[in-house]
Amino acid sequence: MEVSNDLLGYKDLKIVQNTDWFSFSLDSVLLANFIKIKKSDKLIMDLGTGNAPIPLILSTRTKAKIHGLEIQKEVFELAQKSISINKLCDQIDIINIDANDVSSLYETDSFDIITSNPPYFKINNNSLRNSNDQKSIARHEVKINIDDILRIAKKMLKNNGILGIVHRPERLIEILIKMKSYNIEPKRIQFIYPKKSGEANIMLIEGSKNGNEGLKIMPPLYVYDSEGNYTDDVKSMFGE
Amino acid sequence: MEVSNDLLGYKDLKIVQNTDWFSFSLDSVLLANFIKIKKSDKLIMDLGTGNAPIPLILSTRTKAKIHGLEIQKEVFELAQKSISINKLCDQIDIINIDANDVSSLYETDSFDIITSNPPYFKINNNSLRNSNDQKSIARHEVKINIDDILRIAKKMLKNNGILGIVHRPERLIEILIKMKSYNIEPKRIQFIYPKKSGEANIMLIEGSKNGNEGLKIMPPLYVYDSEGNYTDDVKSMFGE
Repeated sequence: MEVSNDLLGYKDLKIVQNTDWFSFSLDSVLLANFIKIKKSDKLIMDLGTGNAPIPLILSTRTKAKIHGLEIQKEVFELAQKSISINKLCDQIDIINIDANDVSSLYETDSFDIITSNPPYFKINNNSLRNSNDQKSIARHEVKINIDDILRIAKKMLKNNGILGIVHRPERLIEILIKMKSYNIEPKRIQFIYPKKSGEANIMLIEGSKNGNEGLKIMPPLYVYDSEGNYTDDVKSMFGE
Repeated sequence: MEVSNDLLGYKDLKIVQNTDWFSFSLDSVLLANFIKIKKSDKLIMDLGTGNAPIPLILSTRTKAKIHGLEIQKEVFELAQKSISINKLCDQIDIINIDANDVSSLYETDSFDIITSNPPYFKINNNSLRNSNDQKSIARHEVKINIDDILRIAKKMLKNNGILGIVHRPERLIEILIKMKSYNIEPKRIQFIYPKKSGEANIMLIEGSKNGNEGLKIMPPLYVYDSEGNYTDDVKSMFGE
């Protein structure tokens, strides 16, 4: 079912979703808040933009032009509706393209920031069986994997441009090693904990193309308080 | 000046220190509490034991035999006094040896757990100039570095034996990559924050020799509350 929801009440933004496929997640909100944006930043790319939560939120933080790339036609159409409803067509372009073909569209070494909330899971038999299913494509590395994202970032980012991704902590080591191998130097990591006790279940990583070594582990962020409500940190992201 | 202090009130333990050289740090207390100990564990080694805070605290958690290795004669003598004052000579052996020579003393593949609070800083001109200074040896990788520790762990740990180290977050990536290269699979990481806001300044890492992949990011730990007092989490380590 296609619905138009408040983007968690985020600064009056609306987002169009099809609840049969998937809904945008808090992960995208966290990443869009985590990424550092400079006043001088002009050009941003969001890889695998889905129904465009990251471009929508970034538009509240910057005047930069934002390009959201989405391979799935039906999802791309939802994203376009969201941009249109929010009257953000001047700032945000949604493009229906395989991100791996991005260098046919844009100049290399031209982006200040690339963001991505990519599929978290490696391909398994189940994801291959359902490889054309919207959920599988969003969740499993069927159409794009972490190497693709790093290859694109290495090619398309300006020198010292920023890559921001959200991922699962169990893939931390692999991702750090691969970032180094693509010359995207990890600079800041934030771990997200669903609650005060227990392990982190999300991580946010920012890397700098050809950046100097020097990693910082940012303060942790808790999503829910002991009563199961969003914490003040999360609420503040929604302007509450 | 040589003094005998309470080990932060820890279960009535005393520790002998020379305040001209260095004092044992909270880092060692955190590591000794972080490390997982099984009932079946029989043999533990602490590399660069200093005045033996880690063996002393571990002795409150296990009946396993603990060997503390210390290269510096004067520091080794302090550690021996500490063990003697606490009447722990049966459980804890302090040995004055270069840890790199450890395979001349013990069987390989024989230890259940190896711990280390190693020097945090790479060698620089200043550390080389003062390379025989007790503080330099404790703080800079003059006599032992992270590669040495991983080489020793790979050689001396049983299969699936545990290495626990405390280090600085800025060296996270290097340490994770090197652990993998020595077949010490990183399993658990805990980041320590001096206070609620701000970055982590200490990390605790546990790896398993020839272990399976699967990293967990444990709940963060804060050292001080907003009034500058130890948090309840830290106090509870001292039995308060």
